[in-house]
Amino acid sequence: MDKLIKIETIFSPTSVDELGMRGKNVVIIDVLRASTTICTALQNGAREIIPTADIENATKIWSNLSPDSRLLGGERAGKMIDGFNLGNSPTEYTPEKVGGKTIVFTTTNGAGTVYKCRYASNALIGTFVNLSAVVQTMVNIGGSWTILCSGRQGSFSMEDAACAGMIIQKARDASDLETDDAGKTAVVLFRSFRGNILNILKRSEHGRYLISIGFAHDLEVCASVDSVPVVPGVDGSGIKLNQNNLVVNG
Amino acid sequence: MDKLIKIETIFSPTSVDELGMRGKNVVIIDVLRASTTICTALQNGAREIIPTADIENATKIWSNLSPDSRLLGGERAGKMIDGFNLGNSPTEYTPEKVGGKTIVFTTTNGAGTVYKCRYASNALIGTFVNLSAVVQTMVNIGGSWTILCSGRQGSFSMEDAACAGMIIQKARDASDLETDDAGKTAVVLFRSFRGNILNILKRSEHGRYLISIGFAHDLEVCASVDSVPVVPGVDGSGIKLNQNNLVVNG
Repeated sequence: MDKLIKIETIFSPTSVDELGMRGKNVVIIDVLRASTTICTALQNGAREIIPTADIENATKIWSNLSPDSRLLGGERAGKMIDGFNLGNSPTEYTPEKVGGKTIVFTTTNGAGTVYKCRYASNALIGTFVNLSAVVQTMVNIGGSWTILCSGRQGSFSMEDAACAGMIIQKARDASDLETDDAGKTAVVLFRSFRGNILNILKRSEHGRYLISIGFAHDLEVCASVDSVPVVPGVDGSGIKLNQNNLVVNG
Repeated sequence: MDKLIKIETIFSPTSVDELGMRGKNVVIIDVLRASTTICTALQNGAREIIPTADIENATKIWSNLSPDSRLLGGERAGKMIDGFNLGNSPTEYTPEKVGGKTIVFTTTNGAGTVYKCRYASNALIGTFVNLSAVVQTMVNIGGSWTILCSGRQGSFSMEDAACAGMIIQKARDASDLETDDAGKTAVVLFRSFRGNILNILKRSEHGRYLISIGFAHDLEVCASVDSVPVVPGVDGSGIKLNQNNLVVNG
């Protein structure tokens, strides 16, 4: 309880670059839906996720992979990309589809944010579905952490900020904690919803957009706290399960 | 009461540039202390404030102005710049010192943010000391507005976000209003302080820094709602009192 951890929170990745994140401990959040999809894919047996910001690059990386174990996943405007195998709904990433596969993954916000963290010391993928496991890993490692919200097209997004707030509150229960103006605001935002995570997602701009294009069920999946208790970590150019710090069943 | 205004809120100017702000209606916030100092200077008779992001440029502009009516003001790390006439404390900008003067003004955050808004349709300087006058002007003009927080060295700052929240709440009392995730979060943050503006400033990172370098009194000045009821507007390269929309005594 006396171990001090320091958490800074960044609400949008626009001001962040690879060199600024170098050597840091980072938790990357994209609640709707990249973080949730990455957790689900890895829990369901995907070998690796390779995130990339643009479609052209995704296709190029994919074309160099072994044909029997590669998949292309991701979205633009929330929808599956033409010619891809999977969209960005976590419900698509079943064991049957992703088991043993390498998934090249491109999304509007989260995938690019992950790419900016490729020189970090520890870069974990965090969201509501693996929240306790991520907090436990942060507390175990200790030191200074940056929570990097993916936001939405360079702007603030409420669901990512509220998730940051829940992480900070939970980390504070487990250790001494120092945080910044953004972190304090994230906690205030999270608390204002009185534990109703689904309501955060339903009220957010991006949540309302996803409902409008038919993904209301995904909001329930993404709001289910600790339902996918894995800790994906950025490892070189890919995202894999963080074996050292993996916390099974919370 | 049926007039609809739309407000988006941007917590840090790093993702914003001159072209993105062109043609928009903007309220620029830098509570500690540039916005407050600008309001005070203009209320106390300064003819114009010319904001600029760097010291070199400030000195160059100043050297071309008439020697009997020019002043150099601003700060770095909160302190007056060597060779300048004024720092960034609103208490320095008395009628005796600034009456009739053009002030070339460079600060770490706010001055650069103002410069990014030089092609906006309406760019107003807003903070707690002129809050009601700014809201009244926004409601009178109507349409879509961007609240642009100056933040602190590219990061989120609590006092600017909370001020945005108070503006949105007050605008909502006066008209139908639509806002975004950031605006809703700003309102939640503002409300969490239950109207104690000074406490917002005292708890903020920048407020605590200013107290540490001897400017505790400035926090009280900057927290005094509607004490300087003027509406400074960006007009070409300078900031002047917004004559058309000037609301005297709230």
